[in-house]
Amino acid sequence: MIKRKGILLVLSGPSGAGKGTVCHEVRKRMDNMKYSISATTRKPRVIEREGREYFFLSKEDFESKIAEGKFLEYALVYDNYYGTPRDYVDEILNQGFDCILEIDPQGAMQIKEKMEDAVFVFIAPPSMEELKKRLTFRGTEKPEEIAKRLGNAEKEFKNMPNYDYVIINDKIEEAVCEVEAIIIAEKLKTSRNHEIMNLLNKGE
Amino acid sequence: MIKRKGILLVLSGPSGAGKGTVCHEVRKRMDNMKYSISATTRKPRVIEREGREYFFLSKEDFESKIAEGKFLEYALVYDNYYGTPRDYVDEILNQGFDCILEIDPQGAMQIKEKMEDAVFVFIAPPSMEELKKRLTFRGTEKPEEIAKRLGNAEKEFKNMPNYDYVIINDKIEEAVCEVEAIIIAEKLKTSRNHEIMNLLNKGE
Repeated sequence: MIKRKGILLVLSGPSGAGKGTVCHEVRKRMDNMKYSISATTRKPRVIEREGREYFFLSKEDFESKIAEGKFLEYALVYDNYYGTPRDYVDEILNQGFDCILEIDPQGAMQIKEKMEDAVFVFIAPPSMEELKKRLTFRGTEKPEEIAKRLGNAEKEFKNMPNYDYVIINDKIEEAVCEVEAIIIAEKLKTSRNHEIMNLLNKGE
Repeated sequence: MIKRKGILLVLSGPSGAGKGTVCHEVRKRMDNMKYSISATTRKPRVIEREGREYFFLSKEDFESKIAEGKFLEYALVYDNYYGTPRDYVDEILNQGFDCILEIDPQGAMQIKEKMEDAVFVFIAPPSMEELKKRLTFRGTEKPEEIAKRLGNAEKEFKNMPNYDYVIINDKIEEAVCEVEAIIIAEKLKTSRNHEIMNLLNKGE
């Protein structure tokens, strides 16, 4: 039996495109898919547990891990660091599980430089108009914040060709099926099947 | 509404791996998938109709079409030509249908040089032993013919890295689902979605 490394699937896209929902549904449906846990320097909330919601680190520890290249990506958000620990993701993949990461486009592009085998999926809204509707409908952002997110989305669209796949998230059910198809297809790529091909080549 | 070109899917692999069965099942299940009709110089059988089983051509016509580059691939088999007419396949694709071709590895590699957008899938048996079993079980080939086909299979395995995907055809149902996943995933590739990305970029 050939032990296969899992696939790192990076879901990204503009705020409001629905990457969080897609990611959540994919995890529920795919048994072999694990979610990466981020590290952060912000204080744990009462209900949060170390290694469940986050790995909680001191600022000093976080910065020394940055220096050691221990993050696939990281960002400083309002004085707190957030990052994806490379060792944790590698462990999931080496155990043969797939790993899904839902992350903003800046983070996705940091990962692209480090993990050439990863699969990058851009979750796009059906249109700018629809994106505006969704952001407004959420009711969690003020008008100026919505305007800023729409401006960011425009920049992020220009970056789409850097992704492997683009999913237009019109109906969530379809988008989830499309992510599943991508995972299945990626595992069948000849570039990911050298061992099986070698066995056949040896006449086994 | 964006009119999309279809995908040319080339299924190949050694004799006995089951590419014919996979191809047949895929066609039954996928509404958008059409099968290319080959051209040949052999005489039509009584039940065969022009443009249904084959396009029947004279040797002279076939050879002038070869000279004009009108075939995606062709071969001379026991004095008769067989080939895949390029215009016919282009028409299917331009209408937005996908097109499936089941073809031997030599033919597949001819197409690879001409259609860079095509998707190449190698249908492999689970093992050489299983391939031998299947060829024997068919009972249509003599032992020396089986030995020849096994020898060819060994050569064809070496060529697997030239394909995009490899499907180990263990259970037909799984193999068909895998082909479907490949088609879905290929259509989501950013490299096939420039128009949609342009629309989003224009803020539409």
